[in-house]
Amino acid sequence: MASSAPTVVNKNTHLFDKARLDILLNRRFFFAPAFEIYGGTAGLYDYGPPGSSLQANIIAEWRRHFIVGEGMLELDTTIMTPAPVFETSGHVARFADWMVKDTKTGDVLRADHLVSNVLGARLAGDKEARGLTAQRQIDDKKKKKKAAKVTAVQLDDGVVQEYESVLAQLDNYDGPQLGELCKKYAIKNPDTGNDVTEPVQFNLMFKSSIGPTGAYPGYLRPETAQGHFLNFSRLLDFNNGKLPFASAQIGRAFRNEISPRAGLLRVREFTMAEIEHYVDPEDKSHAGFVDVQDQELVLLDRHVQVEGRIDVTRITIGEAVRRGIVANETLGYFMARIYQFLIKIGIDSNRLRFRQHMANEMAHYATDCWDAEIQNSSGWTECVGCADRAAYDLTVHSKKTGHPLVVREALKEPIVHEKDIPEFDKKALGQTYRKDAGVIVKAVEALNQEELATVKETLSHRPVTIKTPDGQSFEVSPQMLKIERKTVKETIREFTPNVIEPSFGLGRILYILLEHSFWSREQDIERGVLSLRPLVAPTKVLIVPLSSNEKFVPLVQEVSAKFRKAGVFARVDDSTATIGKRYSRNDELGTPYGVTLDFASVQNRTMTLRERDTMDQRIGPIDDVIATVVELVQGTIDWNEACQRLPAYDGVQAID
Amino acid sequence: MASSAPTVVNKNTHLFDKARLDILLNRRFFFAPAFEIYGGTAGLYDYGPPGSSLQANIIAEWRRHFIVGEGMLELDTTIMTPAPVFETSGHVARFADWMVKDTKTGDVLRADHLVSNVLGARLAGDKEARGLTAQRQIDDKKKKKKAAKVTAVQLDDGVVQEYESVLAQLDNYDGPQLGELCKKYAIKNPDTGNDVTEPVQFNLMFKSSIGPTGAYPGYLRPETAQGHFLNFSRLLDFNNGKLPFASAQIGRAFRNEISPRAGLLRVREFTMAEIEHYVDPEDKSHAGFVDVQDQELVLLDRHVQVEGRIDVTRITIGEAVRRGIVANETLGYFMARIYQFLIKIGIDSNRLRFRQHMANEMAHYATDCWDAEIQNSSGWTECVGCADRAAYDLTVHSKKTGHPLVVREALKEPIVHEKDIPEFDKKALGQTYRKDAGVIVKAVEALNQEELATVKETLSHRPVTIKTPDGQSFEVSPQMLKIERKTVKETIREFTPNVIEPSFGLGRILYILLEHSFWSREQDIERGVLSLRPLVAPTKVLIVPLSSNEKFVPLVQEVSAKFRKAGVFARVDDSTATIGKRYSRNDELGTPYGVTLDFASVQNRTMTLRERDTMDQRIGPIDDVIATVVELVQGTIDWNEACQRLPAYDGVQAID
Repeated sequence: MASSAPTVVNKNTHLFDKARLDILLNRRFFFAPAFEIYGGTAGLYDYGPPGSSLQANIIAEWRRHFIVGEGMLELDTTIMTPAPVFETSGHVARFADWMVKDTKTGDVLRADHLVSNVLGARLAGDKEARGLTAQRQIDDKKKKKKAAKVTAVQLDDGVVQEYESVLAQLDNYDGPQLGELCKKYAIKNPDTGNDVTEPVQFNLMFKSSIGPTGAYPGYLRPETAQGHFLNFSRLLDFNNGKLPFASAQIGRAFRNEISPRAGLLRVREFTMAEIEHYVDPEDKSHAGFVDVQDQELVLLDRHVQVEGRIDVTRITIGEAVRRGIVANETLGYFMARIYQFLIKIGIDSNRLRFRQHMANEMAHYATDCWDAEIQNSSGWTECVGCADRAAYDLTVHSKKTGHPLVVREALKEPIVHEKDIPEFDKKALGQTYRKDAGVIVKAVEALNQEELATVKETLSHRPVTIKTPDGQSFEVSPQMLKIERKTVKETIREFTPNVIEPSFGLGRILYILLEHSFWSREQDIERGVLSLRPLVAPTKVLIVPLSSNEKFVPLVQEVSAKFRKAGVFARVDDSTATIGKRYSRNDELGTPYGVTLDFASVQNRTMTLRERDTMDQRIGPIDDVIATVVELVQGTIDWNEACQRLPAYDGVQAID
Repeated sequence: MASSAPTVVNKNTHLFDKARLDILLNRRFFFAPAFEIYGGTAGLYDYGPPGSSLQANIIAEWRRHFIVGEGMLELDTTIMTPAPVFETSGHVARFADWMVKDTKTGDVLRADHLVSNVLGARLAGDKEARGLTAQRQIDDKKKKKKAAKVTAVQLDDGVVQEYESVLAQLDNYDGPQLGELCKKYAIKNPDTGNDVTEPVQFNLMFKSSIGPTGAYPGYLRPETAQGHFLNFSRLLDFNNGKLPFASAQIGRAFRNEISPRAGLLRVREFTMAEIEHYVDPEDKSHAGFVDVQDQELVLLDRHVQVEGRIDVTRITIGEAVRRGIVANETLGYFMARIYQFLIKIGIDSNRLRFRQHMANEMAHYATDCWDAEIQNSSGWTECVGCADRAAYDLTVHSKKTGHPLVVREALKEPIVHEKDIPEFDKKALGQTYRKDAGVIVKAVEALNQEELATVKETLSHRPVTIKTPDGQSFEVSPQMLKIERKTVKETIREFTPNVIEPSFGLGRILYILLEHSFWSREQDIERGVLSLRPLVAPTKVLIVPLSSNEKFVPLVQEVSAKFRKAGVFARVDDSTATIGKRYSRNDELGTPYGVTLDFASVQNRTMTLRERDTMDQRIGPIDDVIATVVELVQGTIDWNEACQRLPAYDGVQAID
C-alpha cells in the first residue's frame, strides 16, 4: 500500500544537483537523521529550526485552505490504538509489505524494491552498452550507493520491453507474483549475489502494550483515519445530524518500513493531514464543484498503466468527471482543491500529476484512489492520496461494536411499501425454548427481506431451522412463527455514508518543495538559493545592521518590534560576518526579504530592501519599507509593485 | 516523577459543579474517551472540534509568547526512539512508578495513590465522626467511585496529625518506604480488602521494536527533551556558536501510566510544549530578568513541605532570587514568563502557585525543580515543570557517544597557567608494546591533573601501571613516559552548558482552564457558560440569521467573508433552533460574541451584537459591528469600549 510509481527520467531536473541541496539542507539544519550522534536510525528524521518553521507554515496554510476555508470539523485523536480497532479495520491482517531474505546473510529486502532495483540496473546497463550513457552518469552521481551495480550488458529488445512493462505495473503485483518475477528473471540480492527467499508479509504497524499487565496489545496508528471513523456519531451530532460534512486532522503516524532509504520520502514516522468527507452514497455531487470544474489537471488513469504505458491526459476536472474518468464530483472536487493547495505553497505545476491506483495496488479499504504524485529527483512520488473508502470502515466498526455509525434522514415524503414482517407466538416459542427464545427472535429479526422470503416459503409446509450468531440451531414451527406481508410506511431513511479521503504526507511535500525551490546563482554555483514563497518561508525578513555599532541597536529594536506587531516573522542577524555573507546564508534559508540598517538609517531614517531571487535592492523611509514588506508577505502586492513604491538603491554600502 | 501534590480542600470551588461541566464537555465534544465504541481505553482521549480548536489556540499563543517572542529555535524531533538513547539518559533504569498488586486478585495499583486514597478516606471518616461532614458530602458527589469508601470512625488527634504529615510529603517516599507505610497503617486494596504486595517498579515507557528483524528495541519518548539534547551541536551551530539560547518543541509524548483515572489530568498520551534553555553554568543571569523581576508569584518551597506544612509565600520573583529561595535568575525568569502565559490564556491567578520539588521527588536528571501547580476540583495539579537539569543530559550523551556536546568560547584574555603534561618516548613505548602503544597514549591523555600528579609521583621511583578502558593493564617505565610541568596559554574555554527546562503539559492546562472558565447563569442553573477569552475561544463569533429565509443568505455570506478576511474565526448557525437556543449552545462552546441578522439588517444594514458573559446586546451598522468585533477579538478594546461605540439594543427581536 505504500506505493511508489514507476520511475521515469525527469527531463526538467537534469541540471538539478541533489548532492548540493542535501549538503545545504543538512548544514542549515532543515532536517537531519534523528539520533545522529548514536549513529542514526533509518527512516527517522528530526526537523531543525528552518524545517520546523517551514512545516508549521505549510500546516497553517493547510488549515486555512481546508479546515477554515471549508468549515471542516477538526479532530485530535490518539496515536496509541488498542489492537481490536485495527483487527476490525483490516490493518492487522493486511497492512503489510512483502519482504524477502537473503538466503545466506539473512538481510531483509522489500520485494518490490528488489525487483525494481535489479531490473532498473539491467536496463541502465543495456543503455550503457548501447552507448546511451550520458544521462545515466549524471543520474548516478546523485544517487548514493543504494542502487544495484550497473554492468554494461546489452539486452534483447524484447527483454527491454518486458522489463519496462514489469516496472510500469510494479505496484500491481502481489507477493507470490513478485516471487515468480525473482525466479523468472534470476533476481538475487545485489549486495551479495545470493538467492532470496519467497516473499512473506511483514506488518508495517509498530506494536506495543497498553497498561502494566501486558495483556492489552496496542499499535501506533499508520494513518489518522480510524480516529475519525470511531468518532463519527459525535461528529454527526456536532454537525446537527446533517450530511455532507468533513472532519480533518493533522498528526503523527507511524509505519515500520522494511528498509527505508530515501530520505524524507520514505520514513517510519511522519506528520499527516487527513480529511474524511462523509457523503450520501446515492449523491456524491459537491456544492463547490462548480467553482473548481475548470481547473486543469494532468491525469494518468489505471487503464493506461495496466497496458504498461505512462502517457497522461491534460483535462479539466469538470470534463474528467463528465467522461467518467474520475468517478464523482466529490472525488473531483478534492483533486482540484489538492492541486490548488500544492500550487499555492509553491510546488511546480509542471511536475504534478494525478495517478489512479491499479486494482491490486489499492489499500484494502479503498474502492478508488487517485494519488497526487510530484516529480522529483527520485521519480514520481505519491504525496497526497485521494481515496474513495466507500462505506468500508464505518460498516466494519459498526458491525463489530454494535454501535450504529449511520445517518438517519427524515424523508420529505414517507415511502410506503410492502414488506415481510416476522410475527412470533411468544408463548409457544417460550414453552419450547425458554431462555433461548430471545436469541431466536433476534436472529430472525436480523434477516433481510430475501432471507425472510425463504423462511416464509419453508414455513408454508414444514418447520424451519434458525441459526443464531453463536452457532446454535433451532427448529421453529409454523405455530411459533408467522411471516406476514404488510404495508409499511417509512419516514426515516437510514444509511451508512461513504467517505472520500484526501490524505497528505506532509514530509514528502516539504522535501519536494525544497527540491522545486532550489537553484544556484549562475555567477557563483556555490551560492545555493531556496526560492520559497513568503507564504511558507521559515523567516520572512532578515534584519541586518551594518555592524555591531551601538548606534544601530535602537533602530534594530524598532524595526523588529514593528514587524512583530504586523505579524511578520523577522530575525536579526547581528553576527560579524559581512553583509554579503549574511545575505548568502539567508538565501540558503529561503528568507525572501532583507533590510539593512546603516549610518544613513540613523541619519535619514531610510532603509534598504533586498529581494532574494533577483538580489534587487530598493531604498525608502523605514516605515515605508516596513509597510511594503508587510504587503509583500501578505501577498497583496508583488515585487513589481514594490519597485514602483520604492526607488532602486544603487549606492555603495556605507562602511563602518 | 509523575507528581501529584498533597490534596487540599479547594475553598474557591465549593460551588463548582464538576458533574455538570463533564456533561457539557462530553455533549459538546470538547473531548471524549478514545475508542469509546470499543469500550474505551483508560488514559486515552480524543479531542473533538471545540477541544482541538482550543488546543490549537493555546499552542498558537504559546508559540507567540515563547518561540516568536524570545526568538527560540523550534524543533520537531521523532517520538520513536532507539533504546540506547534512553539507556544513556537513565529513563530505562529509572523512569518508573511504584506499583503493588492485590495478593488475591492480582489487580494493579499505584503505590502512592493507594496510600493517599486510603489515608485520605480515613481522615474523611474522622471528620464525619467529628460532625464536620458538610464539605465532604459536596466533594463526594463530584467524585466518581475512585475514592476509597469512607466510614465514620474517629481517629486519635495524633493519628490525624501523622496521616496529614504523610500526605503532605507523599511524593518524597520511595518504593520501600511506601511498602512500610502500607504495613504500618494496615493499608489494603480498598476495592477488595485484600493485602497488597511489596511495591515494585514499573517502567512508564511504551516499548516497541524498530525494523523487521525484531533486533532493535525502541521506546516512545516520555518527554520531548532528549530530541533537543541530541541535536545540541547543530542548534549551537545554527545560533552562530553563541550562548545563551533556547530550543523549543511542541509534540506528543507517552507514559504508560499504571492506572490512569483522572480524565485529562493523568493520561497515557499527551501533547507537551518544552523549552530547553542552554546557559553558561558560571553565569545563570538572564538579560530579560529586569523586565519580570516585579512579577509577584506564590511559592511553596521544599523546606516548608518536608516539615509537613503547605503554607505559601507571596513574593516578587526578584526578591525570591535575591533571597536564594529560587536558585538563579534564569530559573526565576522562566517562572515569571510561565505565570504570565498562564494568566494570559485565562487561568485564575488565585489558584496558581509554584511548588518546589522535594529531594526524593525530583526526576533523576534534575537538580532543582519548581512546578507551576493549578488548583482544580482534584486539588493542586502540576501543569508546568520548571527544572534545572544542570549538565546532566548533555554530559551523559557526550560520554556515551564520544560526540562532544560542549560550547567552545574564545577567551577575551588568554589564561596562562602551569600544568602537568605527559610526554612519551614513542620509540621506547612502541618497542615494548607495539600495536598497544596507541591505547596507552590515549589512556594517559585522558587522565586529569590530579591523576597525572599521582602518575608523576610514581614514575619518580618506579614504573607505573596504566589501565586502558578495555580493562588491560600495562607497565609503563620512566623511560617511556615523562610528566613535565609546563606553562600553558589557553585561548578557548570549553564547557558543557547547563539546561533550564520549562515543560508544559498542555492537556492538563486545557482541562483546568475549562474548569476555571465554567459557571452557570443564576436565573437558569442548567445553562452552562464557558467564559473562555477571545484569545483562546474555539470560535470567536457566531453568525445567527433569524431564520432560514433566503433574504438573509447574501448578508450571511457577506458578514462571513468579512470576518474571514479580518482573520476572525466565525461560524454560521443556520439551524432551525430558536435564537435563544442557538446562543445557549454557543455559551457552552465558549463563543464570546454573537451577531444576529434579521429583517432590520436587510432593510437598514444594521446588526445586533451579543456579549456572552453579560448577555448584553448592542446594535450598529453591519460594518461598524464587524470592526468592533475584530478589535475585541484582537484585544485592542474591551467590552466597555465597545459599548461606547455601539448603542444598547433593547428592541424586540423581529419575528419572521
